[in-house]
Amino acid sequence: MVPSASPFVQGTISFRVLCLLRDCGALSRADLAGRLGEPRARTLAEIDALVAGDLVRDAGPAASRGGRRSTLVELSADIRFAAVDLGATSIDMEISDGRLEPVAGYAEPADIRSGPKATLRRVTEILTKLQAEGAYDRLRSIGIGVPGPVSFRDGVPVSPPLMPGWNRYPVREVLSREHGCPVVVDNDVNIMAIGERHGGVARSVDNALFLKVGTGIGCGIYVGGNVYRGTDGCAGDIGHIQLDGHTQLCACGNVGCLEAVFGGAALARDALAVARSGASPALADRLATQGALSARDVGDAAAGGDAVCARLIRDGGRQLGIVLAGLVSFINPSMIVVGGGLALLGHMLLAEIRSVVYQRSLPLATGNLRIVMSELGPRAGVVGAAVLASDLAYGSQEQ
Amino acid sequence: MVPSASPFVQGTISFRVLCLLRDCGALSRADLAGRLGEPRARTLAEIDALVAGDLVRDAGPAASRGGRRSTLVELSADIRFAAVDLGATSIDMEISDGRLEPVAGYAEPADIRSGPKATLRRVTEILTKLQAEGAYDRLRSIGIGVPGPVSFRDGVPVSPPLMPGWNRYPVREVLSREHGCPVVVDNDVNIMAIGERHGGVARSVDNALFLKVGTGIGCGIYVGGNVYRGTDGCAGDIGHIQLDGHTQLCACGNVGCLEAVFGGAALARDALAVARSGASPALADRLATQGALSARDVGDAAAGGDAVCARLIRDGGRQLGIVLAGLVSFINPSMIVVGGGLALLGHMLLAEIRSVVYQRSLPLATGNLRIVMSELGPRAGVVGAAVLASDLAYGSQEQ
Repeated sequence: MVPSASPFVQGTISFRVLCLLRDCGALSRADLAGRLGEPRARTLAEIDALVAGDLVRDAGPAASRGGRRSTLVELSADIRFAAVDLGATSIDMEISDGRLEPVAGYAEPADIRSGPKATLRRVTEILTKLQAEGAYDRLRSIGIGVPGPVSFRDGVPVSPPLMPGWNRYPVREVLSREHGCPVVVDNDVNIMAIGERHGGVARSVDNALFLKVGTGIGCGIYVGGNVYRGTDGCAGDIGHIQLDGHTQLCACGNVGCLEAVFGGAALARDALAVARSGASPALADRLATQGALSARDVGDAAAGGDAVCARLIRDGGRQLGIVLAGLVSFINPSMIVVGGGLALLGHMLLAEIRSVVYQRSLPLATGNLRIVMSELGPRAGVVGAAVLASDLAYGSQEQ
Repeated sequence: MVPSASPFVQGTISFRVLCLLRDCGALSRADLAGRLGEPRARTLAEIDALVAGDLVRDAGPAASRGGRRSTLVELSADIRFAAVDLGATSIDMEISDGRLEPVAGYAEPADIRSGPKATLRRVTEILTKLQAEGAYDRLRSIGIGVPGPVSFRDGVPVSPPLMPGWNRYPVREVLSREHGCPVVVDNDVNIMAIGERHGGVARSVDNALFLKVGTGIGCGIYVGGNVYRGTDGCAGDIGHIQLDGHTQLCACGNVGCLEAVFGGAALARDALAVARSGASPALADRLATQGALSARDVGDAAAGGDAVCARLIRDGGRQLGIVLAGLVSFINPSMIVVGGGLALLGHMLLAEIRSVVYQRSLPLATGNLRIVMSELGPRAGVVGAAVLASDLAYGSQEQ
């Protein structure tokens, strides 16, 4: 039996040195030793060992602060990570350097239902192309997010409802063999959450929820500064929380699931209905011109003053707010970040969510709660995938 | 900025040694050194330092396993902790030894609304009485749970709705000064959760929810093996999650809160209504005899075949199940433990909760989910308070 309380969080010295160089840039040996709070001689020896390897290099003398001058170290310039964000209908990729600055990017529409072999073959083709264009010489690691539950430990999707053919497909193993480097696989909402916490609006926030409203709806969870993935890797799968009094049939077979009521697919369905009924002349015009409608059309029409579209967004925001209000009472976070494709609905959506959460949750739980839009937008996923890839390469023991 | 991932959990060597002796009893020095996985010489030196202090003593030679014989160490026999569980209407206390075995206990009705001074004075009176009766010579530490949100770091209740006069009252400081030992303060549901995980049905379960259904309703949360308390100390306060379509006025001012619909107070209210309306002859009889009704009467009448009482329990279980189903999709736990006063409703309540959760949550999230009754029952709280007290005395850094 392990002690029941009192963990303190840390990692190996070398991992923490590499993370500091990633997040802060070049630092002096003295500064690193001071920041780590470990025995100084041991930290300096670990830094020397890193410089002797190929991840860290000397970067000249540090600015003098009196006394003996320390030397700067920094991450090697040739470190490259691949970050892959597989959505239900898209592939987004970035190649980044050791500090997670993007050096190349690529995005294209794709259908996750084409299965793991075709999808991962396409990922490999894109990577090979980026390599040929000089984005990288070799990859240190790959981080990849997929739109479904993942066993983080095993590196495989687990019963993902939107991904036929992917159940327990060895994504990590296949990509690792193909590219000769370690690979980390996570859920697409989790990588978005990791991205926002690393380089977005949630920097240094320990308890936060990341609401992704895209075709479906999901939630990334940070508690105590760590992503929480749940017992089976499906924590945050709030799209199938049932709303009483709603009868829309969901793809999962239940009725009244949150994402059957609101989300990209539900909003496109509702838009079609109000266009055809004539309730929204603006949408009827768009339907006649384009032959189809999407959530973006609803957002544009609402912004242009269409009351029925504004109502659709408010009603959806209200349902999201009702679910979030319960989760706020339950998990008492410091921040909720709203992202995903429907974030394009903007402040009309956010205002409704805020209104419902602040009305329905306990005042104590909302006193310090911020509800904000994603800062990284569509890049949140690849940023988070790059963070995971670097954690892996730098020696995280979280696998 | 701290590293974004890859913590590994541990505590100081001496803390981990003391926890092993608490949880396993006497162990040989060799065994302890092996279990900790730290440099052997350092661990043995730490053990010697502990023996030189007053928490640990030598306990003779260990059974020979060939080679040089190791010696046993164990916790000192005179270690005493006080565990206090303040409910809305009760005080439960235990004095335990270093291994958390109870050496004395005491319980009495009380009203938390009599305020902090009167309540803590009564706690001190009881402790003094237990000391006079020989339960302890001196206390190493005190763990106390209160029925409201707590700032764990500050050791004070925070805006507790059921506890007028307690807001930010310095519970830790007052008790510590009075009894000359360190004190740890937590929420009453959290100490129940800690108790069940330490010595009850949830031993070694890392992701678990502890549903307390008493006068009100609350939830303790374990994620990754640690209690999660939330940003403001009110995580798990699910009694005020609003249920759509319900109009019962809650003490918090909102309508349709879970605990306005079900829970000890709501069930007593509903029992009175069906007794007076004549819908339940069994309850009408009890009301005539006793002059009042409680949740226990509903449980007894249902067990005796009263259909209306069975319906009240099932309806309540259904509402609990609806809220839990959403939380299961969200947090994907391995186990839900049901405790608190209304656990006396037994398997009729449990069956309804299970039915709703398994129907409404995602199959992936419920495949490995167990929903069970509390094993420690009314003792869960004091066991958890004793665990917290011992963690504090043994050097936990979680304060």
